[in-house]
Amino acid sequence: MPQPCDLFIHSVQLASMQDNGVPYGIIENAAIAVCDGKIAYAGPMDECNYSSENKVDGQGKWCIPGLIDCHTHLVYGGNRAQEFEQRLQGVSYADIAKQGGGIQSTVNATRATCEQDLFDSAKCRVLRLLEEGVTTVEIKSGYGLNVETEKKMLRVARAIGEQLPITISTTFLGAHAVPKEASSAECYIDLVCKEMMPALHKEGLIDAVDVFCEHIGFSPEQCRKVFQAAQGLNLPIKAHVEQLSDLKGACLAAEFKANSVEHIEYLAEDDVPKLKTADTVAVLLPGAFYSLNETQKPPIHALRQHRVPMAVATDCNPGSSPVASLLTSMNMACVLFSLTPEEALKGTTVHAAKALGLTHKGQIKAGMDADFSLWIFQHPCELAYGINMHRPERIWVGGNRVQF
Amino acid sequence: MPQPCDLFIHSVQLASMQDNGVPYGIIENAAIAVCDGKIAYAGPMDECNYSSENKVDGQGKWCIPGLIDCHTHLVYGGNRAQEFEQRLQGVSYADIAKQGGGIQSTVNATRATCEQDLFDSAKCRVLRLLEEGVTTVEIKSGYGLNVETEKKMLRVARAIGEQLPITISTTFLGAHAVPKEASSAECYIDLVCKEMMPALHKEGLIDAVDVFCEHIGFSPEQCRKVFQAAQGLNLPIKAHVEQLSDLKGACLAAEFKANSVEHIEYLAEDDVPKLKTADTVAVLLPGAFYSLNETQKPPIHALRQHRVPMAVATDCNPGSSPVASLLTSMNMACVLFSLTPEEALKGTTVHAAKALGLTHKGQIKAGMDADFSLWIFQHPCELAYGINMHRPERIWVGGNRVQF
Ligand SMILES: [Zn+2]
Ligand SMILES: [Zn+2]
Repeated sequence: MPQPCDLFIHSVQLASMQDNGVPYGIIENAAIAVCDGKIAYAGPMDECNYSSENKVDGQGKWCIPGLIDCHTHLVYGGNRAQEFEQRLQGVSYADIAKQGGGIQSTVNATRATCEQDLFDSAKCRVLRLLEEGVTTVEIKSGYGLNVETEKKMLRVARAIGEQLPITISTTFLGAHAVPKEASSAECYIDLVCKEMMPALHKEGLIDAVDVFCEHIGFSPEQCRKVFQAAQGLNLPIKAHVEQLSDLKGACLAAEFKANSVEHIEYLAEDDVPKLKTADTVAVLLPGAFYSLNETQKPPIHALRQHRVPMAVATDCNPGSSPVASLLTSMNMACVLFSLTPEEALKGTTVHAAKALGLTHKGQIKAGMDADFSLWIFQHPCELAYGINMHRPERIWVGGNRVQF
Repeated sequence: MPQPCDLFIHSVQLASMQDNGVPYGIIENAAIAVCDGKIAYAGPMDECNYSSENKVDGQGKWCIPGLIDCHTHLVYGGNRAQEFEQRLQGVSYADIAKQGGGIQSTVNATRATCEQDLFDSAKCRVLRLLEEGVTTVEIKSGYGLNVETEKKMLRVARAIGEQLPITISTTFLGAHAVPKEASSAECYIDLVCKEMMPALHKEGLIDAVDVFCEHIGFSPEQCRKVFQAAQGLNLPIKAHVEQLSDLKGACLAAEFKANSVEHIEYLAEDDVPKLKTADTVAVLLPGAFYSLNETQKPPIHALRQHRVPMAVATDCNPGSSPVASLLTSMNMACVLFSLTPEEALKGTTVHAAKALGLTHKGQIKAGMDADFSLWIFQHPCELAYGINMHRPERIWVGGNRVQF
């Protein structure tokens, strides 16, 4: 006698992303049973002992885990399109900076935008992701650089998670840039560690803490203070490191057992084993590499060799990566960084989940959250092969069908 | 007393792409009147003397011309995702070719696929474009390489134009590759010129004729025969030239007053004036440049200097550019080829129309076809600034609202 469940999908092919020894964790002629928002069964149809009144015939289509965009800055005011246009018209970076361009212009716009307007514009970008089958999105603060605006950004991120059928993971990135009103970077880091982080944590707004370790951001020693503060509050650590130069930020992050290091174009091959030892995920952001016309690529071969899990994310932000497509980011990871399509899909499912500490997501497997989507294609390698070629036919989040 | 019209849109901002001395042909506080599928008025609201029961309040949103993708190969059988995956797994080009990969695999799949299945798969790709506000698409044959399959491809292209709210322009690209059954390239070119082209033209399936002039395609002398045949039938000429090497195909095309030359990464600067004299459009295909990891860029500076109109297209095809996003191609034209956002938008409107000889499209201007779309953004430069950031709110084709 089959057991009842809330949702039963049969006659599907799973790119389950389970580590079952088969590429993509493929299971053919499969079924999925969902109880209470969790996957109760995912495996061969003929071994399945579930049934439901809520039954879906998968008609041989493919089911993949809900995609996870584990690195975005998609809550912001204004945009930088006119700056993009000016640069292409030949205006120099220096002149654009003189006019108040760059990150400072986004900070000004974000401070000046009310919470509702920030929500509305961010919602559009999240919907672009959702339409592609993305069901979990990380959102960073870092365009406020003062307690009230950082709080506003994180509240907007939380509101998106409450009002849209999507899981939001928030990251406090107070150490993104030095605000113009700060007397020094040192003073600002003190503010980040002693006031902003504790206050925002107290309101439950922080799921993880991030820094921008770079000559144009913060020094490793300043980042260390942020990590120590995060550690004091028991908050997981992430870090923008080695994007433009090798400051050994990844080694520092590994020392703190960071969940993830991001960008890492300039990461030295010799430092890769430290990431493996620390169980840290390498997050690749090809959209920023592409948009900035970079040429230095992350050490993919060494990461692969040392079995460091690689994630892929959009880095969606108004300056260096105005990209609201995780599927396009997967394609870029293959075309620009030579990832295989399977690595790209691991990078937006199981490894992205690990980068966020959400290890109950990213695979179609008993016990996991019931986030997945149904697609028409011949093989899952098609997901990363092109740009805008495919859309999911249906999406479920926590076992509920998403309507949009 | 205002004149009646079929559709009246007021309170919009136009990026009209008219050559009115203002960037983007911007007209603020504008109105559009449509009669019989044509634009009867497009200009300042307070000078407009039209009215209609079918009235739309633009609420200050932006209206742009229907986008035109003037170079695609989007009707094809199969896909080349597994080949993409194999290459990234380290399998050599030679080994993939030995397995029957490359264009030959698409020819085999296209020959083996029935007309209905070709239609269904192409329709998905056209819908991806339509969702972005594309209202005119050029579709090439060239994966048949025999009269029946070339005919099947062009019939599918025509059927898409009949069944979807989109204008389709068909191009006969018999001279795309030498089919495996041909005894020589020369013999095949004879077949293209003397049998295929006349037969397909007789059935009204050809709007223009194209060739692939390249070491791995056809020689300039072979292309000349195709152009002569096209000229004999009074068909406009297009040409894939100088993508991988400089065979002087562009000069040959200019000699025949081609509507357009395509790719042109290896076009010599000295040859650019010939395009201007011949009134030939330079069609840029950054999706192929990106997907193939090319480094040689088209001579943008010289094209600009000599005022050769530049168009931008997706080149949507299963091998070298699996890209079904014209907006992403515009972004790539800016990021990879340094076009300005305005040049990119001209490239998918007024210049793309010229490349197809459809000079009644591509601008919001009295007398033009009433193809346009409504968007929410601050400035039209945002269209090319990011990837997947924007979608049109509404689309009209021939003055009719598109539902999809
Ligand atoms: Zn970032
Ligand atoms: Zn082409």
